[in-house]
Amino acid sequence: MEQRKISRAVISRLPRYYRYLGDLLEAGVERISSSDLSKKMHVTASQIRQDLNNFGGFGQQGYGYNVKYLYTEIGKILGLDRCHNFIIIGAGNLGQALANYASFERSGFILKSLFDVNPRLEGVTIRGIPVRMVDELEDFLKNNDIEIAALTLPKSKAIEVADILVDNGVKGIWNFAHTDLSLPKDVVVENVHLSDTLMKLSYNLCQQDKE
Amino acid sequence: MEQRKISRAVISRLPRYYRYLGDLLEAGVERISSSDLSKKMHVTASQIRQDLNNFGGFGQQGYGYNVKYLYTEIGKILGLDRCHNFIIIGAGNLGQALANYASFERSGFILKSLFDVNPRLEGVTIRGIPVRMVDELEDFLKNNDIEIAALTLPKSKAIEVADILVDNGVKGIWNFAHTDLSLPKDVVVENVHLSDTLMKLSYNLCQQDKE
Repeated sequence: MEQRKISRAVISRLPRYYRYLGDLLEAGVERISSSDLSKKMHVTASQIRQDLNNFGGFGQQGYGYNVKYLYTEIGKILGLDRCHNFIIIGAGNLGQALANYASFERSGFILKSLFDVNPRLEGVTIRGIPVRMVDELEDFLKNNDIEIAALTLPKSKAIEVADILVDNGVKGIWNFAHTDLSLPKDVVVENVHLSDTLMKLSYNLCQQDKE
Repeated sequence: MEQRKISRAVISRLPRYYRYLGDLLEAGVERISSSDLSKKMHVTASQIRQDLNNFGGFGQQGYGYNVKYLYTEIGKILGLDRCHNFIIIGAGNLGQALANYASFERSGFILKSLFDVNPRLEGVTIRGIPVRMVDELEDFLKNNDIEIAALTLPKSKAIEVADILVDNGVKGIWNFAHTDLSLPKDVVVENVHLSDTLMKLSYNLCQQDKE
């Protein structure tokens, strides 16, 4: 299928479609109409049709969407049809919380190791995956094909570690450290600020009060 | 100041402005031009001017933006000028990671307690804040004015706990449990799916490969 240029707004909604379709697939649902999907996802049916038409109109009149096909196609667009090796730098609470999400593996994200500076964590495993010391990081990267690194370490260390990662071939940084990274243009950085969603919640509570 | 109706897209960018302005304030910066703010935030200066004009044109020609004023005004819009008491349900890794973000307090989010079902966590404190057992939750809510609850517990328990929260006056749910909650319309729910940002990273890596 020839892929058209897709707007950023549509792209940002794809992970959500992917999750819902995954749930449907797990529940044994084979097809779904845009109006049923609309009720489930709390978006208008016309938004769903518009969004999914971007990928060449997978829906069929009177039949609806083939759940498995749509799930697979969206997965391909998101690059989930191939495996991504990733590591987590910072094995504190957040790092360990991420390491415990077994569902990443289902989407092709394979956690290879965690790294920390705390000697008490040396040799600890999480779901069988070992925590290594940061001084082993460079060697580890040279001997393993790691595409993505999650940064769940204090911001004072993030910039230094990011440089080591990039110098050793890491192409994507999932950045939970609260700092901006200045990296080469071909490195993809996704900054995650958990507090942003809390502020949005606060804003919506204020709006609620006004009504 | 009379508040105009602000689009959702602008609202979703406000937490980011708030963060950057907070950093500037901490660094002792008193004013900033839209072009300097633009360079720092990697958005166009015209986008910044457009966004901030929504709040009545705080910028002044030849002077730029007064950082403290803008920070305060955006804080007000986000409802951060008053305190929000909140609790965390689920004191596992993710719950503890959230409890350790002291910076929430600076934005007016006051963590009052964590709750868990694991008896080994009873009496544990995080930054001086106690973990209580979930069977104490209802009493606690009756005796404390809690506005927001973060759900960092397994999805099998989330729906049941959310009902207890809402029945006892909680108005906002910051939902990290991977499940949809059907709650009364006046309850604000902000669903957080960490994996969505990882999928977005994966998508951007794919696009990079194609270039």
